[in-house]
Amino acid sequence: MELKEIGIIESSYKEQKEAPRQGRLSNEISKIKIHSEFSKGIKDIKEDSYILVLYFQDRSDRTVLETTTPFTDKKLGVFSTRSPNRPNPIALCLCEVIKIEENTIFVKNLDGLDNSPVIDIKPYSKEIDSID
Amino acid sequence: MELKEIGIIESSYKEQKEAPRQGRLSNEISKIKIHSEFSKGIKDIKEDSYILVLYFQDRSDRTVLETTTPFTDKKLGVFSTRSPNRPNPIALCLCEVIKIEENTIFVKNLDGLDNSPVIDIKPYSKEIDSID
Repeated sequence: MELKEIGIIESSYKEQKEAPRQGRLSNEISKIKIHSEFSKGIKDIKEDSYILVLYFQDRSDRTVLETTTPFTDKKLGVFSTRSPNRPNPIALCLCEVIKIEENTIFVKNLDGLDNSPVIDIKPYSKEIDSID
Repeated sequence: MELKEIGIIESSYKEQKEAPRQGRLSNEISKIKIHSEFSKGIKDIKEDSYILVLYFQDRSDRTVLETTTPFTDKKLGVFSTRSPNRPNPIALCLCEVIKIEENTIFVKNLDGLDNSPVIDIKPYSKEIDSID
């Protein structure tokens, strides 16, 4: 299972310690630059909509199975945490689309580090992605 | 970017046409069988909690950039759809944990086909994964 990079994140977060714990906690605008061979795929994304961005946390430790979190001192199984250090470091981030200019999507609430590979974008659907 | 299979889905859906359009529309119970080398990672997952399951849709067409959907006849850019046919066919499914027995997580609302590779599990958080 080999992933293709469909684009790249351009953000002001150069290192993990600069990134917000969660993108929802920040109003910073980041850019998603889609590679031209995939640009047809983003033509129907609308401004002011919400998207789920899947990106690869390429600076992660993929051997981690247990980790501490900001919420407890106890070591938790990694699949009960949102730690970037995990066997498949694919981050999921709910973002607001601010504007689109050619192949660049400007988004709010993205917590990805600068230069992280973007893997997928999905439309957010309250019906299927949230609990009543 | 090479993915590791952390487990496998065991479900009654053998082919795409048998699967529900979205897992949220079904009460079927599926199993996630975690491979023993990753079992430490699931030790803190709780019954009755909600998890986000990322799995690989290994029977997808990865060349698709535009597609029709059940909602419109117009061809949409694939990143505005939840089609399994996309450059990186990683499905995201919000599931309810029914019970856990050793390395097997029994879940409701999973729409994955039988034998699909599981990539990641994350705890669902209303705060970061939904919009107020």
